[in-house]
Amino acid sequence: MKKEEMKTYWHTSSHILAQAVKRLYPETELGIGPAIEEGFYYDFYREEPFTPQDIEKITAEMEKIINENLPIERLEYDKKQAEEIIKNESFKLEILKEIPDEKVSFYRQGGFIDLCKGPHQTSTGEIKFFKLLSISSSYWKGNEKNPSMQRIYGISFPRKKELEEYLKRIEEAKLRDHRIIGPKTGLFSLHQEFGPGLVFWHPKGAMIRKIIEDFWKEIHIENGYDLLYTPHIASIKLWEKSGHVEFYKENMYPPMEIDEKILYQLKPMNCPFHILVYQDRVRSYRELPLRWAELGTVYRLEKIGVLHGLLRVRGFTQDDAHVFCRTEQIEDEVMKILGLVVFFLESFGFDQYEVFLSTRPKKFVGSVENWEKATDALTNALKKKEFQYQVDPGEGVFYGPKIDIKVRDCLNRLWQCTTIQVDFNIPERFNLKFVNEKNEFEQPIMIHRAIMGSLERFFGILIEHYNGNFPLWISPVQVKILPISEKFLEYGEKIFKMMQKEKFRVQIDASQEKLNKKIKIAEEEKIPYIFIVGEKEERENNIAVRKHGKGMLGTFTVEDIIKILKEEANTKNTKWL
Amino acid sequence: MKKEEMKTYWHTSSHILAQAVKRLYPETELGIGPAIEEGFYYDFYREEPFTPQDIEKITAEMEKIINENLPIERLEYDKKQAEEIIKNESFKLEILKEIPDEKVSFYRQGGFIDLCKGPHQTSTGEIKFFKLLSISSSYWKGNEKNPSMQRIYGISFPRKKELEEYLKRIEEAKLRDHRIIGPKTGLFSLHQEFGPGLVFWHPKGAMIRKIIEDFWKEIHIENGYDLLYTPHIASIKLWEKSGHVEFYKENMYPPMEIDEKILYQLKPMNCPFHILVYQDRVRSYRELPLRWAELGTVYRLEKIGVLHGLLRVRGFTQDDAHVFCRTEQIEDEVMKILGLVVFFLESFGFDQYEVFLSTRPKKFVGSVENWEKATDALTNALKKKEFQYQVDPGEGVFYGPKIDIKVRDCLNRLWQCTTIQVDFNIPERFNLKFVNEKNEFEQPIMIHRAIMGSLERFFGILIEHYNGNFPLWISPVQVKILPISEKFLEYGEKIFKMMQKEKFRVQIDASQEKLNKKIKIAEEEKIPYIFIVGEKEERENNIAVRKHGKGMLGTFTVEDIIKILKEEANTKNTKWL
Repeated sequence: MKKEEMKTYWHTSSHILAQAVKRLYPETELGIGPAIEEGFYYDFYREEPFTPQDIEKITAEMEKIINENLPIERLEYDKKQAEEIIKNESFKLEILKEIPDEKVSFYRQGGFIDLCKGPHQTSTGEIKFFKLLSISSSYWKGNEKNPSMQRIYGISFPRKKELEEYLKRIEEAKLRDHRIIGPKTGLFSLHQEFGPGLVFWHPKGAMIRKIIEDFWKEIHIENGYDLLYTPHIASIKLWEKSGHVEFYKENMYPPMEIDEKILYQLKPMNCPFHILVYQDRVRSYRELPLRWAELGTVYRLEKIGVLHGLLRVRGFTQDDAHVFCRTEQIEDEVMKILGLVVFFLESFGFDQYEVFLSTRPKKFVGSVENWEKATDALTNALKKKEFQYQVDPGEGVFYGPKIDIKVRDCLNRLWQCTTIQVDFNIPERFNLKFVNEKNEFEQPIMIHRAIMGSLERFFGILIEHYNGNFPLWISPVQVKILPISEKFLEYGEKIFKMMQKEKFRVQIDASQEKLNKKIKIAEEEKIPYIFIVGEKEERENNIAVRKHGKGMLGTFTVEDIIKILKEEANTKNTKWL
Repeated sequence: MKKEEMKTYWHTSSHILAQAVKRLYPETELGIGPAIEEGFYYDFYREEPFTPQDIEKITAEMEKIINENLPIERLEYDKKQAEEIIKNESFKLEILKEIPDEKVSFYRQGGFIDLCKGPHQTSTGEIKFFKLLSISSSYWKGNEKNPSMQRIYGISFPRKKELEEYLKRIEEAKLRDHRIIGPKTGLFSLHQEFGPGLVFWHPKGAMIRKIIEDFWKEIHIENGYDLLYTPHIASIKLWEKSGHVEFYKENMYPPMEIDEKILYQLKPMNCPFHILVYQDRVRSYRELPLRWAELGTVYRLEKIGVLHGLLRVRGFTQDDAHVFCRTEQIEDEVMKILGLVVFFLESFGFDQYEVFLSTRPKKFVGSVENWEKATDALTNALKKKEFQYQVDPGEGVFYGPKIDIKVRDCLNRLWQCTTIQVDFNIPERFNLKFVNEKNEFEQPIMIHRAIMGSLERFFGILIEHYNGNFPLWISPVQVKILPISEKFLEYGEKIFKMMQKEKFRVQIDASQEKLNKKIKIAEEEKIPYIFIVGEKEERENNIAVRKHGKGMLGTFTVEDIIKILKEEANTKNTKWL
């Protein structure tokens, strides 16, 4: 089935779920019930929480509805009739009010009728294999001032094998949960008590971050970017000028008021700072494009309820860059960015993406002509770089069109990472200028772009993608040396120094533990290579090498294993293990 | 003259200054008038500001007093008599009240008498050559709620040559002012309007910062440190636990209150975060010493009046590290730190220091025994590493003894950079533990240390030390290629690519400007090497090389100049230019 067909399939499944709930618990009020990226959910309003027993009953009732093979029909009513039909459903009435059209559509299956745009399958029997997955709570329309709904998630497929594969995949994902692997292997911690959503990078995690940052900086400098470092706070006047106070306030930390009556604001974005650097002197067309990159740590006040490990946090480091250029330069710049994005992501083993081009929304700033020029530039760049992409009409930000790239991980999950956004708004707000060939002032275009999006989030995705078994070039500890007993510690230290001299990240286990215990610890730490040294190895001046997840590789001289490991450590774009 | 003798000399000069002021403007009230690191000042309270003409008059009057060669005598009075003598000097009376002794000393020269500990020269005629340097305003006792004083600074020497040299040196320092060189050569900017004391690192400054950071991280990792990255904010609960809310509040930004009624605090220090990482699991004696380093950006609310370019800011990045160890390990750890400090500072051309060991103050935490052990450990480390040092008795922080290192720059100025502080307090406050050999809990010692102190400040010092002419390894742009005209642009670009391939930081001036103008620009940018390429160079396949501040070096093949520059770029510890 194609993606759109699956969406219809899942949407129909959500109606069956709602029908089952209404049959069993008629007092329940209905919220919304859409298909999502994978599967579906339905939001219910009900005093008592659904119990696991309720979920069993609902599952049985859904099976009954499927077996009844009820035909699904589309009906049209004018608004007055519609109001009568859903008079007991306050949430549906609220939705109805917001629909501007005179006539609205309903879908009916048996005794169940739902205000719905459709489309749907033609009968309930078409849903073959399904499973209800979880319940969570959510606010009506995502606003915490509204009533709290119970959201039941489910999945369904036409074939049993598809359902089984899906369930296996989410089981695997659970085992790879970065929130478990991360702290267990000493990568990071979170401290609810002292501030939820704030990430502490422990020595091993910090080493990975350093490796990512070094690589990121290196390729940016090679590609004509300059680095900037800017503060984490600024007077609120800056955020008033940039429009963030007006349009972004709910995501911002409250300001700090100091003696001099200045309000200071923790930064939710880096762009206004880069603009101040731009404005520090008169710029000439000869300097453009200016490409300024910063690993800028920003703070955004996400709701506690949506925080999730490293994937949704309250403080994160954007791998941010801003390109100041002329309209004619957008296409070329975006092509260069796309090339850099692919190179970067593939280096971390991500070589499958979904690419989205979002175009002019109803509310927008700037001229239609400029929007068209910019959208053409993005389109041309995507085409010339031979990207497959989907257009999301009207889904651009109010300040310009954009390209979003979601990476697909080894469990087939999509993660929003890269974004490339043209901005007509902020150059206007700050009255940015450069002097053109005719010695006249002209306004530059600004492109915001991030490859990873957030270092924290990217790290979370990496942990799950690799299941904590990082490729050698990223591994914080590449080799652990295990002397069989204290007698061979000296020989082990000799090997240790040789490896260190060759710039490997190496540890030695000098504890009194038995070899088996040492191996177990090193395996749990997910260290790629274990060197075992005992009597035979010392005598023959070599080492026994064990590879994580593969077992013993055999005996090597240090020179040979250094050669092998160097080659592996120099290889990026390692597929998942 | 020895340092102590110069202090006496300057202190006497300050009395002559005060005497001159009182003769000319008897209504003026006296504050304090000490000798300082270089020279002296006296604080005066007076309605009208001193004008440049006043300073001329005061200078003439001081010369008169010196010519009068008045004998200076020490007098002792009991407090009552003292009160009578200074009854018209409200500030002096305030000081008098704070003196616990029964008898106090005065110094008199002619008709002028001043409450003063001394010592002094024996007569005013001993002051030979002096100059009043500047006036600034200061609050009485540094507290802005107190009256504002006029502070007159001066310098004096026994020999004319010394005064001339000193004046030349401060003239040079003015020319080297990082606040002028920095923005002029594109290193950084400050934006008063959007928050004073917050530093924006521009492309060239950011490149230098990257070089410093990379070098710093590299040598820390080589020396057994692990890196950490921690957030910039935390719940105020953490700062209550650490004691910062109680003892450090005036230096902290006000907290931010969010929905969940949590107060968030911008961090003034990194240590509590490192402690949370330490506490994340049970630690064993086998892990100690743990050495954790972070380039942690902190925010401290310095008074607007004391902010000064990069040297005194409100947000700065500490090159912070914390060593968790046992008391027996302090000496060895401090020796290692001292070695690292010297290596780091010498790499940046600083090879003269003044070292201070500060011992137990009156108010302290921890046992006297532990203080003695720790102080002995610091002393032994200094001695074994053969450091010359001075003891500052009782000047330690309340939580432990410390070593401070001031570096001497090429203008003979001292800058406080390195600090190494033993801390008994915070391990106790957080109840830090490790499991010892006997399987019992034991409390570790914590050593705080920073080499640069603040990256921003160190950068400011570096700019002035090198007068913006950075050694090749730090120069953000190492080579600029100047084609004589457009005809030789292609050849210039060939050279550009060759240099880039060899990892040099290189620019090309592709503008239409005349060669002389191009050279002038590059010299103003203080770029170490200029490659000039024209017809002759292209024909003979070489380049004409010009060195900043040295002029033409001659003609070289690219291969040869690459070899020369590589050697230079690999040389750290470059003396000032």
